[in-house]
Amino acid sequence: MLLKNRVYQVLSGESTNRLSRVVSLCLVALILLNVLAVMAESVTWISQSYGTWLVGFEWVSVSIFTVEYLLRFWACTSLPQYRAPIAGRLHYVFTPLALVDLLAILPTLLMWGGVDLRILRVLRLTRMLRLAKLGRYSKAIQTLGQVVRLKHEELVLSLVLMLFMLVVASSLMFMVENQQQPEAFSSIPATMWWTVMTLTTVGYGDVFPITTSGKFLASGIAVLGIGLFALPAGLVASAFVELRGLQQTHLATCPHCGKNLDTAPGIPESEC
Amino acid sequence: MLLKNRVYQVLSGESTNRLSRVVSLCLVALILLNVLAVMAESVTWISQSYGTWLVGFEWVSVSIFTVEYLLRFWACTSLPQYRAPIAGRLHYVFTPLALVDLLAILPTLLMWGGVDLRILRVLRLTRMLRLAKLGRYSKAIQTLGQVVRLKHEELVLSLVLMLFMLVVASSLMFMVENQQQPEAFSSIPATMWWTVMTLTTVGYGDVFPITTSGKFLASGIAVLGIGLFALPAGLVASAFVELRGLQQTHLATCPHCGKNLDTAPGIPESEC
Amino acid sequence: MLLKNRVYQVLSGESTNRLSRVVSLCLVALILLNVLAVMAESVTWISQSYGTWLVGFEWVSVSIFTVEYLLRFWACTSLPQYRAPIAGRLHYVFTPLALVDLLAILPTLLMWGGVDLRILRVLRLTRMLRLAKLGRYSKAIQTLGQVVRLKHEELVLSLVLMLFMLVVASSLMFMVENQQQPEAFSSIPATMWWTVMTLTTVGYGDVFPITTSGKFLASGIAVLGIGLFALPAGLVASAFVELRGLQQTHLATCPHCGKNLDTAPGIPESEC
Amino acid sequence: MLLKNRVYQVLSGESTNRLSRVVSLCLVALILLNVLAVMAESVTWISQSYGTWLVGFEWVSVSIFTVEYLLRFWACTSLPQYRAPIAGRLHYVFTPLALVDLLAILPTLLMWGGVDLRILRVLRLTRMLRLAKLGRYSKAIQTLGQVVRLKHEELVLSLVLMLFMLVVASSLMFMVENQQQPEAFSSIPATMWWTVMTLTTVGYGDVFPITTSGKFLASGIAVLGIGLFALPAGLVASAFVELRGLQQTHLATCPHCGKNLDTAPGIPESEC
Repeated sequence: MLLKNRVYQVLSGESTNRLSRVVSLCLVALILLNVLAVMAESVTWISQSYGTWLVGFEWVSVSIFTVEYLLRFWACTSLPQYRAPIAGRLHYVFTPLALVDLLAILPTLLMWGGVDLRILRVLRLTRMLRLAKLGRYSKAIQTLGQVVRLKHEELVLSLVLMLFMLVVASSLMFMVENQQQPEAFSSIPATMWWTVMTLTTVGYGDVFPITTSGKFLASGIAVLGIGLFALPAGLVASAFVELRGLQQTHLATCPHCGKNLDTAPGIPESEC
Repeated sequence: MLLKNRVYQVLSGESTNRLSRVVSLCLVALILLNVLAVMAESVTWISQSYGTWLVGFEWVSVSIFTVEYLLRFWACTSLPQYRAPIAGRLHYVFTPLALVDLLAILPTLLMWGGVDLRILRVLRLTRMLRLAKLGRYSKAIQTLGQVVRLKHEELVLSLVLMLFMLVVASSLMFMVENQQQPEAFSSIPATMWWTVMTLTTVGYGDVFPITTSGKFLASGIAVLGIGLFALPAGLVASAFVELRGLQQTHLATCPHCGKNLDTAPGIPESEC
Repeated sequence: MLLKNRVYQVLSGESTNRLSRVVSLCLVALILLNVLAVMAESVTWISQSYGTWLVGFEWVSVSIFTVEYLLRFWACTSLPQYRAPIAGRLHYVFTPLALVDLLAILPTLLMWGGVDLRILRVLRLTRMLRLAKLGRYSKAIQTLGQVVRLKHEELVLSLVLMLFMLVVASSLMFMVENQQQPEAFSSIPATMWWTVMTLTTVGYGDVFPITTSGKFLASGIAVLGIGLFALPAGLVASAFVELRGLQQTHLATCPHCGKNLDTAPGIPESEC
Repeated sequence: MLLKNRVYQVLSGESTNRLSRVVSLCLVALILLNVLAVMAESVTWISQSYGTWLVGFEWVSVSIFTVEYLLRFWACTSLPQYRAPIAGRLHYVFTPLALVDLLAILPTLLMWGGVDLRILRVLRLTRMLRLAKLGRYSKAIQTLGQVVRLKHEELVLSLVLMLFMLVVASSLMFMVENQQQPEAFSSIPATMWWTVMTLTTVGYGDVFPITTSGKFLASGIAVLGIGLFALPAGLVASAFVELRGLQQTHLATCPHCGKNLDTAPGIPESEC
């Protein structure tokens, strides 16, 4: 029991204990090295020259991650909410972080278990999922999660508007340009590629209108539509600034009664 | 009379009644399916393989939308402002939403009525107008409408400034590049295509200056003009954030003492 | 004397008098028509088919503008600051608006006076200066002027930073790419074309790095530099919003004493 | 001793003394001329026609900068923190500004001292480091430094998120496009070039997806990712505005009663 709690504390990464911090750092380093290894493997000459090293490193990494997964699985009962030996562990297995841990090793384990190698190519890249394991440690990813949660409604609303703009603009451009450029503007869904790349202002230049009416329409769409497609960027930026502000000024008090505005508002008015 | 009120309530979509919500959902689904159908029809192989299905679906859709339109026309007198049987209905027919409803079915109805098929191509896409019927249900579109209304003046002002910039920049570039590239910079209106695509930072690369003075001028125009063309995007984003703020904070009261945090702060603390 | 004041009032455009508003509207319309005429003249087929009409229109326009200029010159002494018949008028002639009025007609007048026609091409476009005459009437242009004045210091500062970034980035890219692409990256000044078009995110694609180190460097420059080149856009947008806010909320009062914060602050504290 | 203090004061540029300001101005002008000279030298025809002049100018510049460096080295003991004749001067030599001063002349001095000329090409551009000497005089560069310091944490956080996005997006695109375009999307690191140029919206058009799934994925990446890559621009702009605000409004008091407008508003009106 004591050992299990110890293991839990070390792996949780929240303890200020020295061993715990060393283990966390090593795991983060291992994850980053795995990401680098997947990237390196995609380069032909590295893959050919150092292929066996990379396979060996994969072998070692998956072994460590498997041990980590099993230890977490065993030690999770230290937490009150997973206390029940079987029900608790089953519950734990389906938490997002545990699922990510499993998915990050499952493909390689399955391959070792003799599963058909034809889907190997895709399997290789599922290893990139190990990046998601960093979610446990990275403040940046947690901040992004908070940003999305904070502006959830606005982001959905602007995505709906962008979809609208996309359908309308693509239909109009298809109508105008299809006859002159039957290849590039072959259908409304095909025209959407042009629309997205124009409204995000990327503008590769692989597709663009050539008729006068098409250029006129495209100019109008660009001037009016770019604002819509810039909305998510604006929302993320403002949420980011807002969030950092909240984290730094969590002493916001009511100017009338001087109480903290962030605490639970269940207190009756008479107490004020 | 009772039936008419019932029909009105069901179609209005504002009632919390179950039937009303089911009808609204079905109509929204039908509109979205219609949009998908128009998009699918523009793809050659879908149009060839499933053409008859799409025609049939159009037949069904227009029938339903016609019934919807007639029911709304009949039931609108339930509302106080359209109470008069004839004058009220005439008044209703010319409201924006009723006009959109009519325009979304009129082309197909006319075609069925034997109107010349040569403008069929354009007619097909007017069916996209059915998207506008969503305006009755979509919060996103209503928000966009509010944003435009909120920043109406600023948007007009920035459009005027953009037009100014457009004319000035195009004249200058035409003057500088016309001799070297008589095709791409053939006239001031033709040069505007370059100007819009540069100042919105899309930059397809189909037209760009090649003379040294042209590049110099284009750099200056880009550095100074992009700010102007980014104004609408900035205005829409700030109006969007503002608007959502207004909707969410009309309860800006202290959770402890219940007082409004925005009121005049001259009240002495003892009153709290 | 009375007539002169009347003429001044009518031309100033500030009077609410009916004649004054009609004259202002006519002058604005004439200016806009002139801009359209210059644009139309640049299109070959219009210039060939309707050339004589355009010359006639130019003749009429310049006559009207000359009369306008002379009337303003004569009537300006109605204003206290230009009261002196000679010194006042001389002073008036060198005000920005009067200079613009003169420059907008001078080229055509000179041409009529028999000045060499070889610089005719450039002369034609100086007629676009007539747009600047709109500055007297357009709220949009005046707003832009205020925006520039409000953020004067920040704009200069960011232009200096952009110049810095431009020199540093161009030097580095020249060093890295010059050997592989001696044409496109032929010198540091030539490389600046690439730098401006990348940092403004226009990206025509006429020039881009092809070496690995060049791509690496360009990625870094893009990620770090785009923020700098987006500064003027951000400043203009924020100044625009700020300015409109100032115009709408000019009732900002001190929450302590309730007095208007915009009035002259020379009042001694005892009065408060 | 008096002379040394005098020299220090003149070179520091902080004294309001006339000589000091003239010396500062001359040094700034010399730095700017050096930057122009390096840029001019990169242009072949200037380098060929005026090469000897440029070499001469370099000779003069480095001489002046060497004298400046030696004078600063000698006079730095005027400052209390570098008072000790040897330890103080050693300490001074390793301050950032002193290092920049040294690095800006060292390459040319080494070359004169007979060091191998094969790395001459790179050496030439290290002269651009002289721009950094402007840091001592330029308000713009100091402001940029403050901006970076003010938003240090947010900038690091957003760079981490961008790196994340970069790795994930590149892996996905590599998986989807590699088979169709083995050249452009040859490996994950190579795909990053596409990712950076798309997410910054530069979009040269040298690399873009051609498969349907690739275009679909790229559209999604563009819509979701551009917000992240626009974060630094937003942070820099908001920090810039914030910083200028701080510098200008540290007098936020009511001009009537002189009280601070930001203090607790609990004070009753009678006190005002």
